Parts: sequence; C-alpha cells; structure tokens
Amino acid sequence: MLRLTTPGYSRFAQQNQFDINFGGGEANVAVSLANYGLHSEFVSCLPDNDIADACIRELKGLGVGANHILRSGDRMGIYFVEKGAVARASKVIYDRAYSSFSTIKPGMLNWKEILKDAGWFHWSGITPAVSENAANICLEGIKTANELGITVSCDLNYRKKLWKYGKKATDVMPELVAGCDFVMGNEEDAEMCLGIKPDNTDITKGKIDTDAYIGVSREIMEQFPRVKKVITTLRESISASHNNWSGVIWNGKDLLKSKSYKITHIVDRVGGGDSFMGGLIYGLLLLESEQEALEFAVAASALKHTIEGDYNRVTIDEVKKLMGGDASGRVSR
Amino acid sequence: MLRLTTPGYSRFAQQNQFDINFGGGEANVAVSLANYGLHSEFVSCLPDNDIADACIRELKGLGVGANHILRSGDRMGIYFVEKGAVARASKVIYDRAYSSFSTIKPGMLNWKEILKDAGWFHWSGITPAVSENAANICLEGIKTANELGITVSCDLNYRKKLWKYGKKATDVMPELVAGCDFVMGNEEDAEMCLGIKPDNTDITKGKIDTDAYIGVSREIMEQFPRVKKVITTLRESISASHNNWSGVIWNGKDLLKSKSYKITHIVDRVGGGDSFMGGLIYGLLLLESEQEALEFAVAASALKHTIEGDYNRVTIDEVKKLMGGDASGRVSR
Amino acid sequence: MLRLTTPGYSRFAQQNQFDINFGGGEANVAVSLANYGLHSEFVSCLPDNDIADACIRELKGLGVGANHILRSGDRMGIYFVEKGAVARASKVIYDRAYSSFSTIKPGMLNWKEILKDAGWFHWSGITPAVSENAANICLEGIKTANELGITVSCDLNYRKKLWKYGKKATDVMPELVAGCDFVMGNEEDAEMCLGIKPDNTDITKGKIDTDAYIGVSREIMEQFPRVKKVITTLRESISASHNNWSGVIWNGKDLLKSKSYKITHIVDRVGGGDSFMGGLIYGLLLLESEQEALEFAVAASALKHTIEGDYNRVTIDEVKKLMGGDASGRVSR
Amino acid sequence: MLRLTTPGYSRFAQQNQFDINFGGGEANVAVSLANYGLHSEFVSCLPDNDIADACIRELKGLGVGANHILRSGDRMGIYFVEKGAVARASKVIYDRAYSSFSTIKPGMLNWKEILKDAGWFHWSGITPAVSENAANICLEGIKTANELGITVSCDLNYRKKLWKYGKKATDVMPELVAGCDFVMGNEEDAEMCLGIKPDNTDITKGKIDTDAYIGVSREIMEQFPRVKKVITTLRESISASHNNWSGVIWNGKDLLKSKSYKITHIVDRVGGGDSFMGGLIYGLLLLESEQEALEFAVAASALKHTIEGDYNRVTIDEVKKLMGGDASGRVSR
Amino acid sequence: MLRLTTPGYSRFAQQNQFDINFGGGEANVAVSLANYGLHSEFVSCLPDNDIADACIRELKGLGVGANHILRSGDRMGIYFVEKGAVARASKVIYDRAYSSFSTIKPGMLNWKEILKDAGWFHWSGITPAVSENAANICLEGIKTANELGITVSCDLNYRKKLWKYGKKATDVMPELVAGCDFVMGNEEDAEMCLGIKPDNTDITKGKIDTDAYIGVSREIMEQFPRVKKVITTLRESISASHNNWSGVIWNGKDLLKSKSYKITHIVDRVGGGDSFMGGLIYGLLLLESEQEALEFAVAASALKHTIEGDYNRVTIDEVKKLMGGDASGRVSR
Amino acid sequence: MLRLTTPGYSRFAQQNQFDINFGGGEANVAVSLANYGLHSEFVSCLPDNDIADACIRELKGLGVGANHILRSGDRMGIYFVEKGAVARASKVIYDRAYSSFSTIKPGMLNWKEILKDAGWFHWSGITPAVSENAANICLEGIKTANELGITVSCDLNYRKKLWKYGKKATDVMPELVAGCDFVMGNEEDAEMCLGIKPDNTDITKGKIDTDAYIGVSREIMEQFPRVKKVITTLRESISASHNNWSGVIWNGKDLLKSKSYKITHIVDRVGGGDSFMGGLIYGLLLLESEQEALEFAVAASALKHTIEGDYNRVTIDEVKKLMGGDASGRVSR
Repeated sequence: MLRLTTPGYSRFAQQNQFDINFGGGEANVAVSLANYGLHSEFVSCLPDNDIADACIRELKGLGVGANHILRSGDRMGIYFVEKGAVARASKVIYDRAYSSFSTIKPGMLNWKEILKDAGWFHWSGITPAVSENAANICLEGIKTANELGITVSCDLNYRKKLWKYGKKATDVMPELVAGCDFVMGNEEDAEMCLGIKPDNTDITKGKIDTDAYIGVSREIMEQFPRVKKVITTLRESISASHNNWSGVIWNGKDLLKSKSYKITHIVDRVGGGDSFMGGLIYGLLLLESEQEALEFAVAASALKHTIEGDYNRVTIDEVKKLMGGDASGRVSR
Repeated sequence: MLRLTTPGYSRFAQQNQFDINFGGGEANVAVSLANYGLHSEFVSCLPDNDIADACIRELKGLGVGANHILRSGDRMGIYFVEKGAVARASKVIYDRAYSSFSTIKPGMLNWKEILKDAGWFHWSGITPAVSENAANICLEGIKTANELGITVSCDLNYRKKLWKYGKKATDVMPELVAGCDFVMGNEEDAEMCLGIKPDNTDITKGKIDTDAYIGVSREIMEQFPRVKKVITTLRESISASHNNWSGVIWNGKDLLKSKSYKITHIVDRVGGGDSFMGGLIYGLLLLESEQEALEFAVAASALKHTIEGDYNRVTIDEVKKLMGGDASGRVSR
Repeated sequence: MLRLTTPGYSRFAQQNQFDINFGGGEANVAVSLANYGLHSEFVSCLPDNDIADACIRELKGLGVGANHILRSGDRMGIYFVEKGAVARASKVIYDRAYSSFSTIKPGMLNWKEILKDAGWFHWSGITPAVSENAANICLEGIKTANELGITVSCDLNYRKKLWKYGKKATDVMPELVAGCDFVMGNEEDAEMCLGIKPDNTDITKGKIDTDAYIGVSREIMEQFPRVKKVITTLRESISASHNNWSGVIWNGKDLLKSKSYKITHIVDRVGGGDSFMGGLIYGLLLLESEQEALEFAVAASALKHTIEGDYNRVTIDEVKKLMGGDASGRVSR
Repeated sequence: MLRLTTPGYSRFAQQNQFDINFGGGEANVAVSLANYGLHSEFVSCLPDNDIADACIRELKGLGVGANHILRSGDRMGIYFVEKGAVARASKVIYDRAYSSFSTIKPGMLNWKEILKDAGWFHWSGITPAVSENAANICLEGIKTANELGITVSCDLNYRKKLWKYGKKATDVMPELVAGCDFVMGNEEDAEMCLGIKPDNTDITKGKIDTDAYIGVSREIMEQFPRVKKVITTLRESISASHNNWSGVIWNGKDLLKSKSYKITHIVDRVGGGDSFMGGLIYGLLLLESEQEALEFAVAASALKHTIEGDYNRVTIDEVKKLMGGDASGRVSR
Repeated sequence: MLRLTTPGYSRFAQQNQFDINFGGGEANVAVSLANYGLHSEFVSCLPDNDIADACIRELKGLGVGANHILRSGDRMGIYFVEKGAVARASKVIYDRAYSSFSTIKPGMLNWKEILKDAGWFHWSGITPAVSENAANICLEGIKTANELGITVSCDLNYRKKLWKYGKKATDVMPELVAGCDFVMGNEEDAEMCLGIKPDNTDITKGKIDTDAYIGVSREIMEQFPRVKKVITTLRESISASHNNWSGVIWNGKDLLKSKSYKITHIVDRVGGGDSFMGGLIYGLLLLESEQEALEFAVAASALKHTIEGDYNRVTIDEVKKLMGGDASGRVSR
Repeated sequence: MLRLTTPGYSRFAQQNQFDINFGGGEANVAVSLANYGLHSEFVSCLPDNDIADACIRELKGLGVGANHILRSGDRMGIYFVEKGAVARASKVIYDRAYSSFSTIKPGMLNWKEILKDAGWFHWSGITPAVSENAANICLEGIKTANELGITVSCDLNYRKKLWKYGKKATDVMPELVAGCDFVMGNEEDAEMCLGIKPDNTDITKGKIDTDAYIGVSREIMEQFPRVKKVITTLRESISASHNNWSGVIWNGKDLLKSKSYKITHIVDRVGGGDSFMGGLIYGLLLLESEQEALEFAVAASALKHTIEGDYNRVTIDEVKKLMGGDASGRVSR
C-alpha cells in the first residue's frame, strides 16, 4: 500500500506535500523478518504501474522476496496519515476500496506453488476486511498452509473503517482463525473479530488490566483448538506522544509477561503491531525461549515507535541491546 | 481531483515526497473564470473526508462556488504526474476508478436547481469517460441547460487511459455534443470522440497544418447543428520542454487564427486546454470581438504553461499585457 | 498578519527558508468560530498586493468572511517566529510598524454597516497596541457595538514589544475595556493593561495560585461595571516543550475552574489564547452551561498547542472528545 | 535587505515556504568585490534584531566588512520575489517603507570616518528612492567622497514602485549624479532619473539600438561635467527565461562595445546590474584596459543570471574563462 | 559512490542540504542493463556501514546483483556535484581518496568465481585512476575475462582530477585496454589515456569534426589488436544547459553515425556516457544490427540527460519510442 | 568537519537529503567563545575546495578567526549523524580517515606565530585520535603554549570509533594532558584516555554517583601536577530524548556541583560537551566565581541540547536567564 503522510505534525490540508512510504500489515512483517536475516516473501496483488514498481523496488532493496506479487487490477491501495501529538490523535483515511488486491479472484494466487518451500504463513485481519474475495483468497492460503503443515499466524488487526462490504468481522474471521497456530491481537481485537470480550477494560482511559486477558486467551483456544499461543499487545495510551508498551503470551499454561517500555516521544506508531509480530516470529524460530521471543518482539516494536514509516528498520543488535536493558539512548561513537 | 506530482523533474520512485495540487478539467475552467472576476460554481461529487475538504477550501479561497458539490461515495479521484523534459514525455497515471463522481447515480444532482441562475454550462470529455453513470449525469445536465436556454460548451478532451467501462468515446460523446453551442478540441479529439478525422496530420512529429481543421470543423457543425463554433487548440510539440501554442475558431464562415506563442521553457503544461477554455468563455462574454476572445484564450493558456499545478493563476492584466504583444518577461519593479 | 517561522526548532539564520502562515489575534478567533460552523467576519485593513491576497484566500477557504477588509496602506504586518524547546524560549520579532492597519484613520471603517447584523464583536489588546489610530478605530467599533446592543469581548493580550507609539497600555486600555461584556487575560495582562495586580504570582517559575485571580477579577468588574465575566487562562510553563493549561471564569459570583491539561509535547503554542477565546464564544453561544463553555474553550486550546500555525484547525467533535475525557491520542482507524 | 522568494517558479500564495536571501544594490556590489579579493565595506543601517544579524553574518562570511553598519530603527527592508518564466514576468513586491535605512537622519553616518581610507564610493539609485532622508545621507556621502578625492560611481537603478515620498527621481537624482565619476544605467534609467531620453527604443519589444545610447551618454556628460564614463547595460528580453546581455561604455571619445551573451536558461536575474558594476569596478582597478574591464563586467553578470539570489557567487577564474570564450559549460572533473 | 548534489542550481555553500544519490561508472552501466531486463552484477568494495548499505539496497531494488561486493576498508568514495546552467559549468569535487575500493589489494576479489557465468565484463577508466591497487585488480579482472572468453568493454573515461597516485593514465591504461574487445571514449579520452590524438578539434568551442575520429579509432585498433570496435560519444556543448549529443562506431571497416539529439534543457548530464555504454551493450546483445545498437545507445543516453542522478531510469519502450523518431514529449494519458 | 545529518528522526537511507552542518570539537568551542564576545581563532587544516570554503565562511560569519587554517591535503573530515529517539540511540559514522588534518605533518603549523597573542589554548582528545601526526602536532601546540605561559585546557573526549592508527588513547593522551591546566571529561573519559577508573558507575543505566568523581579527579591531579582543575560533565541518559545534565569541578580542595537540568525533549545533543567547555572558559575568564563559571557552562550546554547542529547558537543573556532560574521557556514578546 502507498502511505501518504503529511510532514511533521501538520493536519491534512496544511501542507502542499505528502511524504511517501509504502507499508501495510503483511509487508511490514516481511520487512522485519528480512531485517533479521530470514528469507521472507510478500504475497499480494498490485497494479502494473510505476507507483507499484516503486513499492516492489523498495521491498527488494530491503531483502523481501517479490516473486509472488501478481500484477493486475486498477489501483494500489492508499492510506493517508496525519500524525497526532499529545491529546490530538493520529488520523488515518483509508482509500483502499477497489485496490488490485481487493478485486483479486479466488484461484488467481497459486498457493501450492507459493507455499511449497515456506515454513511459516502469516496473515493480517486487514486482508479479509477489504473485500469478500480477499477474505476467500486468504482462506485458500490458510487451508493450503494447513495441508502443507506450515505454521500459520495471524494478527487480528481490527479496523473499524474497513469492513464495508456487507459482512462483519465476526462473520468472517472465525473461519480464518480456525486455521491458525498463533493468534495475536490487542485489547479490543478479540471482541471485534471473534466476539470474545475482555472484562473491565476501558481502552480510551489507557489503563489495562493485564490479567484480564487470560480469560480471553483461554476462550480463543477453546473455540479454535488449533491455536497454540495467544499473544496480546498491551498499549497504554498516555497520549498520542507517549505510550507504554508491552505484551503477553498465553501458551495454554502460563501467562508470560514482557517488560514494559515507556515510549515517551513517539515518532511514528503505525506498524507497531506488525513489528511486534515480526520480532515474535523471529524469536520463536531462533531464540532460546518463549520468554526471550516475547522480549525480542516487545523491544523490537518499542524501537519501531521511534522510526518514520511503517517498516521497522532495526537490526538484531539494536533489539538485543534494548532487550538487555540499555534504553539509555547513548550515542554510539 | 487530487493531483500528486513528483518534485522537479524526478521520475516516479526517485522521490519520497509528492507535491499536492487539486485540479481537473471543469475545476480548472471554474478557477480561470473566478480569476477573471466571473462567478463560477464547481459541480461535482466528492467523498466526505479531509482530503476533499482541502480541495473545497482551496476552490473557495480562489473564489469558486462550492454550493453544489455533493459529499458522497468512497474516494476522490487521484492522478499521479511525473513531469518530462526535452525528449522524455510527462507521464500521467490515473487512479480515478471508483471515485465518488464515477459512482454518482442519475438524479443525485438536481440540475434544475443547480442551473437555475446560470448563464453558461461547461463540461469536459473527461467526465463521460470515467463511468456510464457519469456520462448519464452529464447528459442530464446538458439537457437541462438546453431546456433553460443556457449556453453549453464542451472540451472534447479525449483520454485514452480512461474510457474503460465498456463503451467507446465514439459511442457516448455524439449524444452529448449534440447539446452543445461551442465545441473545443485538439488535433486528435474530433477523431477519437466523434469519429471525424483530419487529414495529413502527424501529431507526434509536432507539425500541424492549420487549415486542415476547417474540414473537421465543418463536419462537426453539419453533424451537430446546435454547434455554433468549433475551437481547435494547436500544440506543436517541439519537445516536452518547448511547445508552440495557438488556436483557431471556425464560426461557420471564417477561420479566425490566433497568434502563436513559442513556449520555450515549459513549467507545467497540464491544464493548458482548460485555461484556453476559461479564457475563451471570459472573452466571448466580455471582450469586444471573437478575435479578441480567441487572442485572450491563447495568451491566457500560454501563461498557464509557466505555472505549477492545474489552475491558471493569472490576472486579466497579465493576459492583456501578453495579448498586447509584451512577451518580454521584464521584471515589474 | 504574515507569520514567518523557521522550520523545526532552528534558530533565526540557521535556515534558508521560512514557513509561511497567516494569523493574528482576531483572525485566529474568527477561524475558530468558522471551524465550529458559526459565521464570522474578519475586519481589518490590508495592502493591495499578492501577499495580502494570499491571506484573504486562506481565510475565505476556511470559511471566514472577508467582506469588510479594507485594501489600503503600504504593508502587511509581519512577525517572525523561532520555536523554542525545553529551556529555550520561543522568540518573536514583530515587524508590524506602519502596517496597513496601523495607518488606518478613524472613519475609514464604517462600523455601523459592518456590525449591522452582528451578534458579537471581539477585539484583542494587540490592536490598540500598534498605533494611536488603531486604538481609536477599535474604540469606534466598541462604541458602535455598545450602541447596537452587540456583545463585546476582549482579550487583553499584553505585548511588551508593541506599545511603542508613546502611550502606555494603562493609558489606553481602560477606556476600551469599559465597553466590554467579557474580558479575558492571562496572569499578567490585568496588571500590564489595567494596572490591576495579582498577588503572590511569579510567572517565570510557572506556578500559579488559581484563587488569587478572584481578587483581580472582582477589581475589574468594579472598575468596569459593564463587564459580566472575567476569564483567566492559566499557563503553567514547565518548559517551552511542556505546559499545563487550564482556565477560570469569574462570573461575579462563582469561580468556575476547568480541567487542567498536561501538554507535554508542544507543537506550536502561538495562538493558544485566541483558540481559547474562539472556543469560549462558541460555548457561551451554543453549549448548555458556562462550565461546559469553559471546558470547551480549554480543550480546544489544549488541542491548538498540537497544531502548527496560529489557526486552531480542529472540529467540534475533536474538542468534545477531549472534553469527554479521551486524551489518549489513540489512532482513529 | 531581506529577500523572500517563492520556491521554483511558484506564484505568491502557491507555496507555504519562502526561500531566504539577503541582497540589495550596494550590498550586491560589495559582495562581488569581496569575491574578487578586494576589500569592501557595506555601509547601511539595520535594526538590532536576529534577522539583521543573519544578514550581517552572511556578509562577513563572504568577506564584506560590516564595520559601518548602524544598528537602529524599527525594521529591515523586505522584498518579495516571484520568479517568472517565458512570457510571465518576474514580480517584485517591495516592503521597504519605514525600513531602518529609510528613517536614518542626516549626520547619523560619520562619512569622514567611514571613507577615510576608501578608494571608491559606490551608490545605487535605489537609496535616494526610499526616503528624503536617505537621499540626503547619500548626498552627504557623495560630497564627502568628492572632498576626499575618492572615485564615485552610481547605478541609476530606476524603480517605479519606489519613489513614493513625494519627490520624483528627476527632482533628486541630478544633484547626486553631479558628484559622480562613473554613471551606469540601463536603457530607461537616464530618462527616468535625469530626464535624458534615448530615441527609437521600445524596451518591451526587447530590441535595442546600441548606438542610440551615444547621444544619451554625451548629454549626461555635458550636464554633469564630473562624469568621465557612462556605462549602459543592454538587456534584450526575449522572454523571462531568455535574455541577451551586453554593455557599452562611452568614455567621451569612443563607444566600447562588449560581447553579447545569450542567456538562454535564466536561473535568477535579480542583481544582474549590480554584478555588472562589481565586475566593472574590479576591471577598471585591476585589469589592463577599459575594454577588458567591460568584458569582465559583462561576463561576470552573464554568470550572475545562472545563480540563485542577489549575490554573484563567482570567482575571477570563472569570469575570465567565460571572457576567454569558453561558454561551453563543460563539467570540470 | 555516494554523490552529494546541491539542490537546484545552487552553488556549494548556498544550501544547507545535499541531495543524496548513488552512482559511479560501472554501477551506472549495471543499472541500465538491469532496466533493460538483463542480469547484471556490480562488483566493487564498500565499507561495512549504513551508508554503503543504503547504496546496496538501492542497487538491489533496481535489479542489480550485489553478490560480489566486498565489505571492507574505511570509507565510501564521495563526490560532490554542483549543477551548472548556461555558461556556468557544473562542478565536481572528488572525495574518493582512500575509498574502500582504492585500498583493495590484488587477490581480494576472486575473479574466477565472480566471472564464472558472466557473458560480458565492463570496466571504466575511473577505476584504474583511483589507486595502483585498483588498477591492478582491474587488470586481474580483464585477464580473467580474457581467459574465460568473456567479452570485455571499457569506457576510457579520463578524469583529470583523479590520477593522483604518481602514475599517468598513459602509463597504466594501455595494458588494460589491450584486453578489451570494445573501447568507448569521448573526443579527448584517446589522447589522455592512450596518447592517441585527434586532429583539429577544439572541444571547448563545442564544434566537433566527426570524421576526424576515424583516424583515432584506426590507431587504437592497430595498437590494440584485440579491439573490434571503437565507439566515440560526441558531445557538442552549446552551453551547460544545451548539448547536442550523438555517437559513432568504427568497426574497422565502416564509420556508423547515429542521429544527433538536441538536448536543449539538460536536467542532469552526469552519467551520460555510462548510459550510452549500457544502451550499447544491450543493443549489441539483443538488437538486430550494429546501427540499431548505436541508435539505441544514443537515444538512451539522450534521455539520461533529462533524469536526475547518475542512473538512467528509462525503459526499453521509452528508448525505442525516441529511436523511432518521437521526440515530441507529448504527455501519455 | 562536514556533518551530514538525516532530516528529522530518519534512519540512514530513509531519506534522499542530508542536512549540512559544520562542526567538530575545537570549532564548536571557538564558536561559543565568539558568541560570548571573545576573540577566538580556529586552528586547523582543510583542503582547498568549495566545501571547506563554505565551512570557513560560516566560521567567519559567526565571528571566529580563520587566519591560521592551513589549506592543504585531500579531503575534509566528514561525519554522518542519524538522530535517535527514546530507546533508539543516535548513530555516528565517522569518515575522518585521511582528512587534511590527519595528514598534516609536524612543523606545518607555526605555533609560535599562531599563539603569540593568545591567552588560552584549547584542544580536544579527538585531535590526537585521528592520526599520529595529528597527535604530534597537538603536542607541539601544547608545548608552545606552555613555553609562552598560555593557559591550556583539554576535553578528553574519548571516541572508541576513532583511535585506529595503532596506538591506544592511553599510550598517547597522558603526555598531552601533562601540559594542561584544566582537564574536562565525562564519566568514562578518564578511564579510556588515562587509565584512571571511577568506581561503581554503570553509564548505560544512566545513574551516576557524583561523589565518585572526586577520586578520579584527585588521581588526575596527582599524575599530572600542572592540572589545576578537573571538570566532569554528568549526563544521566534517561533515553535518547531525555537526559539530565550537570557538571562538577574539583579544584583540588572542593567539589563544586552545578544545578542539574532535566532536558526532556532533546533537539540535538552533539556538541554538548563542547558547549560546556566554551561556557566554562568564558566563565573562568569573565565571571566572578568558579561556581558561577560552572553554572554558566552547564546552563549554556543545557541550551545547546535544544539547538540543531554542533554549534551552540546562544547569547550571554539567554544563558544568564537560565542560570538565574528561568527555565520556563515563556515566549518573549
């Protein structure tokens, strides 16, 4: 997707330029994995024009494979972003209707071929939100991955402003989640996507009762027996400029809790959840324990909040330094 | 429409910012008329979001009425522009599919109300190109104007990259043109829109035989008896940086020819034809002769080529100075 | 007025570009009111040149009427702004001397005509500070409003760097304030403009004793019997980057106190007081209680601190969301 | 003076930033001389604020002495520039009224002290145009220079938009020119400043009859017997983007003509005349012949047209390379 | 190499930003080939830091292989560019001393491995100019290519400001050229690199006698019997803004001449020769005749002059359209 | 040195422009002193090119003497800076190898001449880190200053990424420090440069035990008997965006402690130590007590953290206002 952001903290229409970035749920995860040295492929459908070419060039430059990007359809999804500050929230205007991906038809992606050497398949709840076709193709992918014995993860990623094609998230998401091994969400996703409701949480007040998520996680694992871990990102929104950030994993037995990071001067929080998922996949694959994977994911995504654009442009060393407790920001020289 | 242009002469993907402008055929004409002190209204349909708000704010600031802009639909049409130089042509990527205007339904615009105090109704061939509904609504407007005895003008404005909804321009345009008093086009529009073909003209070579257009104009007036004048803009493309620019009017009797301007250092040629039409309407309404109106139109649009963005930000004085023969560009101080 | 700001946190002379904004006390209030859907007119005098045209275009785009802006005189007032951070204060250089408005002569503004349909007349203490003529014209306006029974409000707005034409604020302001229904000021304005001094307040230390203002307010209402409410904005300056912000209203009987907002990452605080006044006028006219009006005013102006430029580009919904307690800055998507 | 220019070819109000430059007639000449290794001092009056500090810092960095700049008065003169292209002329808005320099009083500059070690005194016709005081102080300087036997040169520099204080240029300039050794002007300056009129020249048509200037030059030398050379810059304005540029010197006996340069892609022509004068003073002082001095001046100012801002940032080597006939613009590498 | 260019036409020190590009002889050729769909590898040595990472990411995004880039040494070569206009030449400041590549030692590049599947090896005369080691490594590459039967081409690319390590180009280049099949140069390269001198050509005057190059080409082929074609690029420098551009090939029998392009508004001419070579290699490999290859090369490089940065960002279609005679720059829409 | 910084908080390679600044240890101190009205000279060696010219121009504009800058060698040292935020540290890439200064030979600077009228000689530990020659020349300067009875100060300024020429800091620095009257360092410099180790300090945790520095300071004064004061800057790194900043002086008898400043929104911390030293030299020379000098130094450098670039662009008044306790950042207007 093409992301057009007003420079600095300007509101829409205060500026005569947009900053250009590319991003979007799954692409963001793919970039994180490539940054950590893993081979990742971004599977999507983009129109055959120069704007989409630019997107693909950037992905390739960042080390993400683009071998399974269909070139078809009329347009690339766009979203406009205006960054907030203090009590003024960031604002997102979606212009994703009729994007190439949303008009893709079942069968157009040859999932068997795409996934034949894959070890992990990740999808985001944004995909089934854009159109019924997109939801169906996502389901095709999940089912193929299940057949091939590939680990499947999803980020529930509920977006109220999408889900406009006549079905509700709760109509569509359960069937998709049923094919997943790992499910990630924030404090409202489970309710909005799966109808599973946490207790006693008022997210606009920014206070989160960590333990309340055990109940939700248990419920998810009961309803969707394939699911082995439920991951919850915990964002305490002090203001648009200051969030506290942590995460928990419920593995069916224990609730692992991460450190919490005080992100006192947010640069760009879009892509925060994706950077968490990217870090988590890396950690679960290559680090020594589930707790370490969780800490890697949280630290990686804490760093993301300091980086412009959707992609989390950090190295393993930077994440590990922060995990190791050095949040001092001392200049390296 | 939202126009996103790469800064300077950069190609798409060389830059990380887009310059923001608003524009589009009819809006460009409306702005020209407002600049010349005439009351103009831009009639369209835009989504209800901050990007469209910015567009409307700019129009209102420029003096164009926005009282008949419907707020409905999903998205604002976008087009991406990369400016060419010398032998490298400018490039336009349209992203207009499914724009609010293209999804408008007949009856949604109350033309009787809109046109009740109007003296002139202008439409561009871009409008019927975007969707069948748009073509039908345009036809409604033309018919209402005809009933109310309002002058109707059109710019044929053929765009190969639009016209994708299953009908050809030649299927749709004749019925619309039949309701017009004045028809404007460039050297290829008559053929592409109406199937009326000039002889002996190779537009890519940039050489134009002025007189060949008499034949075309005559043919238009025969097929469409309401048409009283056929206006042809003549662009001799030496290169993307250097065009010679003039125009002719066939009024059924004489072929009036304008001066020709050597535009040796083009700043931005998008909107050139619209600025011609804006100047022409002003001239036909308020100047003393048809020849003067033509000279005003050509001079105004020659100036447009030196101005960034679609809108022709010039004053009557500036146009008249150029009409009067002062093309010296001497600093006023 | 033309406001020229160095980009980011640069000091004057570190940059080779200035950001352009327009603003100024009364214009800022007018824009706030237009944003909230009220009809407002900006009454002023500007030179007849392209810079002033740009200012007027922006106002019209934002919905502010410009029907009573005289075009006369030599120049538009300018002020240069350098934004501070942490312990480095923002710096303002005024270049308002001899502005068109300052050279306006009594009688040039036809106040009867201007105010004939008005419901509210607002002026700022900056106006009488620029020249004796300006003060006299302001007085004409106030008297006319009084005659016509129009509510009059003022923001005392003391500016030490203005008031250079030989009279002190305390010589001029009392006569003007005598015609007001509502008087607003910050913790030092009453003393500098009216000679009425609060006790025990050291503003550079940033600690403010709220209740001390009751005494000052009482004194104002005694000296100026027309005054019905005295409003005080309370700014606790922790640093140039972090202010706490609230306000109180003394209505002759009670001291209403607002919530206090911790504005921890100031984007641009210029225009903060004007956005308060804009919110207050809206609130007093259209909200249900004085307390609600005060809360609207404080929330609106808290948001202003997150917005570049003088104008408070917020909607009623955004202000009400903050008033309602949601300062979490969560992304709306 | 502070010069604020819209970026690129934008019209006023199309942009939200101004490019910042400093410049002005005499300062431009002083910078040229410093670039060529001569000691020069800029004598003026500027306000005591950070904007003027920035101006002085730049001058000092460029090697111009700032020891005789008074710091007094309210404001720095400003001019706004919008660059033209092709048939659209550049536009200048002066905002010099009430500048520090214009409010300077006779006696405030101690000319005896300032000029005690000087070899050359140069002034521009812009100075007496801004105010009567400025004219008087300029006259003081000229008279002091005459007493001390210092060479005096002037650039007539007629500016219609200045000269607003009630006197005409022809009332004021003759007395000042009477103290000059060298007088420079363009094709209209002699008439506007001294009432001496060339024949048969229509400057807006851009065609200039070189020899017609002999008559004017002769007349100047008759009326002002101290004048030893009259220099005329010849600008043939093909368009705002393309000028042909040359100059002539009448030394009372011969008319020396320079080469003519086709400046086909003008970057910034403001300061063109000043760069000519700077080159000429250098040439007359240090080159071997009057003809060589003229060629240096013309080549230097031809290069100025390719440089952004008022100052002519070129080296002696660059000017001499062009004088020597190498206008090929080949990359040096 | 990192290229840092002042924005627009600014001179060094007029701006406080540099535009960032990457480029350099061989990389530019590799990018051209990748654009035309050929597999190319850029072989070099870069330091192990984030700046070099950025360079490699861009190359990979553009489709150039980076599998044989050594990461070693202290620094990346830099060059600073200031773009000229009209009679002011562009200026290049090299800061390549001690770059990683210049400090590479023979043996560090495993040419056998690198070239094992290659079909063409291209090098530029800039490489042996930077250090003796670089020259030796280049020689290793050429010899390995000769052994493996791979076609070798070189661009003589004489740069006076390099060649500082104590040997002259004429000492070093002949041995390298001896291993080449194709040799390209401009009008002065043969003399400066090989001591073979054309007659009657004064390059600064910008006039070139095409046929005089037959003599030079013959002489090259006699001295270096492996050479099968000598290609000469012909640049007629009217000014820094306007060049005429063409090329010739001597194949030992005929002198093939290309069309000549008038490049009247140069955007960026750095990389012009490299884009010619890229086009030529493509043409010789995939087009039907030597003449067609030459025309492709000239048209491709004519387009390069309209593109910012070193790389020639054009498609085969764009080049073929120009070759086909359409230089009109008409907007495609 | 040329400093190239990515705009805003972008990572290397996210942007296509670098912000240009000049800076470096000793230059930064010289600029501070010039800002406070003292005469300072920057002694260095720079190449003879336009980039170095720009650096010298800026210094001269800021009032720093450039009379003893040798123009010799190949290149100017460069460093690339990417600014961090929150837990992401700023990153510096040095490209100083083979800079003009590093290749300077003993004897090339005539220290007797340079220092003949000097009152103070300051050097930074960065200088001996770049090359053995640089270290030797620094030693020459120190010895000459000692002979002439000039006060010598140094900032130990340990930089791990420099010190690459084969000697360790502890091999080189002691001999240089032996000639100093005042030695400044941060919490790790004494150990890295002199092998003198503080106890119990974990700098990455950001907690500093002030009193532990007495031991280190005592040890320095014992080993280097010329040293009269040891100054330690104390940086508590809460994050890259928030540091607490203070300093102590050990004068052999007392440990003077400064106020501590909470710098909650860092704009640019590079040059913080240099601005401390600049303030301290000013204070020791011109303020009334050692404590006042220390407070001036800390306040000056606290302000530096709010200013872009290496140089501390503040006035004495601004520093004294902060020293006096006004950290409120209230707008001056």
